[in-house]
Amino acid sequence: MKVGYLGPLGSHSHGAALAYWKNQSIIPIAMDSFCQLIEAIENEMLEAAILPMENSTEGAVTQVMDLLLKTRGALIQGEKILSVEHNLLGLGPIEEIKYVYSHPQAIEQCRGYFKANLPHIELLPCQSTSRACEMVREKGIDHGAIAHGCAEALYNLKLIEKNIQDNLLNQTRFIIIGRDGMNPTGADKTSITFSFVDDYPGSLFLVLKRFAEAGINLTRIESRPAKLQLGKYVFFIDFIGHHKDIAVEAVLKKITRLTSNLKVLGSYPQG
Amino acid sequence: MKVGYLGPLGSHSHGAALAYWKNQSIIPIAMDSFCQLIEAIENEMLEAAILPMENSTEGAVTQVMDLLLKTRGALIQGEKILSVEHNLLGLGPIEEIKYVYSHPQAIEQCRGYFKANLPHIELLPCQSTSRACEMVREKGIDHGAIAHGCAEALYNLKLIEKNIQDNLLNQTRFIIIGRDGMNPTGADKTSITFSFVDDYPGSLFLVLKRFAEAGINLTRIESRPAKLQLGKYVFFIDFIGHHKDIAVEAVLKKITRLTSNLKVLGSYPQG
Repeated sequence: MKVGYLGPLGSHSHGAALAYWKNQSIIPIAMDSFCQLIEAIENEMLEAAILPMENSTEGAVTQVMDLLLKTRGALIQGEKILSVEHNLLGLGPIEEIKYVYSHPQAIEQCRGYFKANLPHIELLPCQSTSRACEMVREKGIDHGAIAHGCAEALYNLKLIEKNIQDNLLNQTRFIIIGRDGMNPTGADKTSITFSFVDDYPGSLFLVLKRFAEAGINLTRIESRPAKLQLGKYVFFIDFIGHHKDIAVEAVLKKITRLTSNLKVLGSYPQG
Repeated sequence: MKVGYLGPLGSHSHGAALAYWKNQSIIPIAMDSFCQLIEAIENEMLEAAILPMENSTEGAVTQVMDLLLKTRGALIQGEKILSVEHNLLGLGPIEEIKYVYSHPQAIEQCRGYFKANLPHIELLPCQSTSRACEMVREKGIDHGAIAHGCAEALYNLKLIEKNIQDNLLNQTRFIIIGRDGMNPTGADKTSITFSFVDDYPGSLFLVLKRFAEAGINLTRIESRPAKLQLGKYVFFIDFIGHHKDIAVEAVLKKITRLTSNLKVLGSYPQG
């Protein structure tokens, strides 16, 4: 099975793909943009793709939300929550390391660890965590790299120290997209989007009321601009249940009348 | 009165400052970041500052939202909605222009105009719309610049064509911040933030219910991650009314019990 992720090799998305399909034989394919990934699903070049949807520090990945709104062929088939894990990789013992390469963002996220434990090490920015691993292979034993979970095997490096990021609660929720809808499993989640013709806060209250009356729990509410004029929004709601459940079907029918452009992005097993 | 904006000279924020305080004598001061602007209000270095809050195409300016959450001294005192307006500036007649400089984003937003009307002109990217204006002054009559509303006077250039952006509905809502609360005017808006100790969608529904019962209209609902763990959010709500209005006071009292960390970011005249 060909599955796409946002590259390069060893990226956080690559790690997420390996974690999600860990017991299946997949051919992971690195792509350059979220847009390319969704197009590759629509064009049947890929069977599935994994994309970040939200991060506990940075918030929603707005570009992915805007793309999901537009796609006609891709559906959400699953989700995977993954901690943003930075590891220190190298060729030899920790005492030998004088320089550590990584992407500037990864360096920023591990600055406290180096200050407290290895203040003599010089932190050097480079293009990506993957490039940092290549640099260690080129430069030798006195160099290290900060990289994601799956990188040590890909670049044949030693795992020197695990989880060196300062914020241990930094998590990313990834979604898995494909062309086919998933069958109910009994522990599902559904993602929908909709907008309103006019006055949105009153209407949003009525939509939330329908869910509350049916006892359906929402897990996330987000808004994005409708790109028409200021004050017009598109809403994204995730809730517990499958769109084929009788209670969910009834609520979706009711809110069709309250909203415009209601679209089910997918029903999928809870991560 | 010293007022701060995100520079450089001639930026979109600079234009917004000149538009908002158009009948007052102000000393506009360019700063390098949103964080510096808010600190300058807190430290009493500036009396006011203007910051972008949301854009009709890009959505919320999340960095500004996160800073408002943390500030202890700055309050929202006003708002100003401004169209993102790109103008073609130069030194001589339009027929002489062969090259046009601008920031890559501004070039992207005007590509359709040049393709349809001036396909022979070469579009050249540079650092900022302000730098583009300087380039025209250095290079002469066969060069032009795409820049914001206020730039022609600042750089002593001619306004050759107004509103050349392809999307005429692109608007930005700016907020004005300062240290003092504003008195009720009868046509006010209030911005609040809050979070929840647990299960947020059910609780959010109850908060919205209190507003609906009191007949208070909401104009915007946004969420940002609480930066603790995935699934924990901070909410931002704007509504019509002043926090000193009797009806608003009663609702705020009720929702204090439903929420945690309820904070009034400011009550201010509607823009």
